[in-house]
Amino acid sequence: MPETLQRTDRAARLARARAIVGAGKICPAERITDLLEAVIVSGDRVALEGDNQKQADFLAASLAKLDPVRVHDLHMVQSVLALPDHLAVFERGIASRLDFAFAGPQSRRLAELVAAKSLRIGAIHTYLELYARMLVDLTPQVALIVADKADRDGNLYTGPNTEDTPTIAEAAAFRGGIVVAQVNEIVDRLPRVDIPGDWVDLVVQSPRPYAIDPLFTRDPARIRNENILMAMMAIAAVYEPYQVARLNHGIGYATAAIELILPTFAARRGLKGKIARNFVLNPHPTLIPAIEAGFVDNVYCFGSELGMERYVASRPHVFPVGADGNLRSNRALAQVAGQYACDLFVGATLQIDAQGNSSTATKDRITGFGGAPNMGADARGRRHPSPAWLRAGEEAGERLRGRKLVVQMVQTRQPNGAPSFVERLDAFDLASSAGFALPPVMVHGDDVSHVITERGVCNLLRCRSPQEREAALRAIAGDTDFGKRQDADAIDGLRRRGIVMLPSDLGIDVATATRDWLAAKTIDDLVSASGGLYVPPARFLS
Amino acid sequence: MPETLQRTDRAARLARARAIVGAGKICPAERITDLLEAVIVSGDRVALEGDNQKQADFLAASLAKLDPVRVHDLHMVQSVLALPDHLAVFERGIASRLDFAFAGPQSRRLAELVAAKSLRIGAIHTYLELYARMLVDLTPQVALIVADKADRDGNLYTGPNTEDTPTIAEAAAFRGGIVVAQVNEIVDRLPRVDIPGDWVDLVVQSPRPYAIDPLFTRDPARIRNENILMAMMAIAAVYEPYQVARLNHGIGYATAAIELILPTFAARRGLKGKIARNFVLNPHPTLIPAIEAGFVDNVYCFGSELGMERYVASRPHVFPVGADGNLRSNRALAQVAGQYACDLFVGATLQIDAQGNSSTATKDRITGFGGAPNMGADARGRRHPSPAWLRAGEEAGERLRGRKLVVQMVQTRQPNGAPSFVERLDAFDLASSAGFALPPVMVHGDDVSHVITERGVCNLLRCRSPQEREAALRAIAGDTDFGKRQDADAIDGLRRRGIVMLPSDLGIDVATATRDWLAAKTIDDLVSASGGLYVPPARFLS
Repeated sequence: MPETLQRTDRAARLARARAIVGAGKICPAERITDLLEAVIVSGDRVALEGDNQKQADFLAASLAKLDPVRVHDLHMVQSVLALPDHLAVFERGIASRLDFAFAGPQSRRLAELVAAKSLRIGAIHTYLELYARMLVDLTPQVALIVADKADRDGNLYTGPNTEDTPTIAEAAAFRGGIVVAQVNEIVDRLPRVDIPGDWVDLVVQSPRPYAIDPLFTRDPARIRNENILMAMMAIAAVYEPYQVARLNHGIGYATAAIELILPTFAARRGLKGKIARNFVLNPHPTLIPAIEAGFVDNVYCFGSELGMERYVASRPHVFPVGADGNLRSNRALAQVAGQYACDLFVGATLQIDAQGNSSTATKDRITGFGGAPNMGADARGRRHPSPAWLRAGEEAGERLRGRKLVVQMVQTRQPNGAPSFVERLDAFDLASSAGFALPPVMVHGDDVSHVITERGVCNLLRCRSPQEREAALRAIAGDTDFGKRQDADAIDGLRRRGIVMLPSDLGIDVATATRDWLAAKTIDDLVSASGGLYVPPARFLS
Repeated sequence: MPETLQRTDRAARLARARAIVGAGKICPAERITDLLEAVIVSGDRVALEGDNQKQADFLAASLAKLDPVRVHDLHMVQSVLALPDHLAVFERGIASRLDFAFAGPQSRRLAELVAAKSLRIGAIHTYLELYARMLVDLTPQVALIVADKADRDGNLYTGPNTEDTPTIAEAAAFRGGIVVAQVNEIVDRLPRVDIPGDWVDLVVQSPRPYAIDPLFTRDPARIRNENILMAMMAIAAVYEPYQVARLNHGIGYATAAIELILPTFAARRGLKGKIARNFVLNPHPTLIPAIEAGFVDNVYCFGSELGMERYVASRPHVFPVGADGNLRSNRALAQVAGQYACDLFVGATLQIDAQGNSSTATKDRITGFGGAPNMGADARGRRHPSPAWLRAGEEAGERLRGRKLVVQMVQTRQPNGAPSFVERLDAFDLASSAGFALPPVMVHGDDVSHVITERGVCNLLRCRSPQEREAALRAIAGDTDFGKRQDADAIDGLRRRGIVMLPSDLGIDVATATRDWLAAKTIDDLVSASGGLYVPPARFLS
């Protein structure tokens, strides 16, 4: 479709929709296929809302049922490929091109489809980058979004999981695009308006509430002593010396352990009110004890977390809660907050190489990036100083700017026994086989400040050559092949210079790294800590 | 105020407001001082909307009239200090602390107030960075915003100059903050809702329409041959070889000249459809001829531009226009778009040093940064390739990523005769005198790819040492003291390696760089090119 016809085209599409929905905006669920065929044209860029947590699953399933003779060659633009239906549109020949950010659950099937040439990947993005392109050169002709409730004017209430919805709606609605929302319920009066009805063309009530996943819940019972040791080292080697107040981190057991030892280990070290005050993070249940201990000033959220709704609503001084009493999250703004207002990012990875480059890509999986590339690097436009940023910059030899602390926490071996440290990332092979211009490196080695394993911590900021970086990484790589190539003599020098820190260098007795430090040892403990406000999803109940 | 009291405190503030406004949200203009004293408490962080273009001027003036005995020590958080009232709050002792991004018009007075210790600057930010901190550690207790129209429920219509309003409102409304909006008009039905009324507590109709400045209008009659020569070099040395399709640039005459020679000089070189297709840019009137020539696919906007309203509304295939037929801009999202979805940023500066660091700071002015730091650097989280980005990365010797093209266009001397090239930036002296942790460098030298003067172009990506960068910069610095220290022998080598390009190296005869290339030579020509849709503000009419 030539862009110049856009305006006329929008009117024609809406006219076709009106034959189905009449004068209003509400489409009966049983007419959704007809509606999508009315508003979608072959070759369209379609932004299908697939978030980290909630999914426009009814619209995804309906899209996958279209007649590929009538609708084909769609260009899908979506954050996350989470559901089988997200690939079915390619398998059925309805869509042929994809720009995305994360495909964790569908990564293997995605790689198969790429190999079979059933789809062509434009690029893999970090979330914020994909939203940026939706405004510039990946503008959607149709957006298929999801919310909790709508009124008859198309105003939407997202509930706590606002996530990507406002950004996708804005990108489409102000490019002459057609915005279709699936909602759980159509009501007369919304608790609050998250997206104005003027931005929404059509609404369908889904037969079932949308799918949503409690991705950010970690059961404290599954945290092992190694995780606790690494968490203690993170606090002693990074949080404390750099005075890290503002931070974001991942969802592994190591970072859950950090959350759970703030009120114990960190408090014992006198760090309350000094570190970990401002989080950019979803409402992790494992953060409850630190919040209740008054460790945390506030948390800005990408999305929400199932079961945390009442707790969050009752802690409006901590979470971004509206006048209606409920969380409003915002993934685009949270990515901006993580990029520009945090001094520390802690991530995890599957593989890390001799220069500290890390990747979760393997030859038979195209996993994508999510948010790590955006938050796992210094924002070069940043100009405001903080103690953490200035000190990191000084250590790195910067004269005119600071540096973000970017920490990779990774055990020397993955749960399946595969070494986390490798001479060559699988990402390089994937790039060749999938035809990518560059290997899909998640976090670049030159952006990483620290790597923490159960063996120790290395500070890459202080390294002054590639050889030194490599030696530092080998020193904490344990009994992997990569680690066995370490030079015991060199390590002494690196320890003296504070580049390599073993637990003893940090004053940590490994024998004391036990679950006793955990402020909550079970999901039940989290419920208690929340005063009964946290209601865990069934799968987390014993 | 302890953050834990926030929720109760919000209720108390609104109760005090109700004594003035009754049950609704509308405050009579004559009661605004009482209202502000009711909702603002000493020590509050107050986000006062000062944008690049529109100003919450009635609220700013009213704030400056508060009784400093009752309200003092406010911490102002605002993008732009544009009006005398923005400083009056400090002069009168109502506010004492400031975090901001740009203070162009008030830069001299701001420096005086800092010197007199009338206020303390937290930090100077790039726009996106300030918004990020408003979500994390500079969360506002009160937001004073501005829009075109409101309805009685507090829903807001911003008109084309949406700018910062949604971001400020979101940052405050979901932190228990009080949101007060000044509007030009209160109506029964809005053309569209830009900000839901649920996010807005109080509305006041201003006695006069808000102040707004046509900052992005450049009169083609003032473009000189030197600007045109530099524009020709930019296209020949950067846009064409790197195939730059997606870009953002500044507001000087050099970039206005680029806009105006796209349909002539660039078209003659066969570049239509190949370069400058996607802009992240306000609706510059000087872009009209390129748009009308079909050179431009689309433009995503930070704000709008006075006089361009009808033209923009009639080009919905180019600009982000809503179903209501009017532009919606968004400065936060446009900064994200400029950062992550553009391959080129072209900026200007007052001073540039031997390593390519640039600054607009001088000892007696604190100007701030605006958007340049954010867009004038590679986004290290970027993962999607483009021909421009990959080629720039290769030239810079990157193995695993590309590089953004960051071009500084600057005449060797400023209009006042001062040299643009200096051995030492005034920013270093300002940092000492104002007590900044780091000198306020606008764009760091290691982020700059090209510098263009009327003498030539240098490509810093190809430089392999600080000495080479310095020699390249001196080679194009003309008859400034800085330029006179150039080494004629070294220049031949730099030219052979494509590091220094003189006009003749680019096939450009300086004598042909004349105003004849301009697709519009006057404001009247722009009006004609727009088919009469562009309506220039009075100051631009002869």
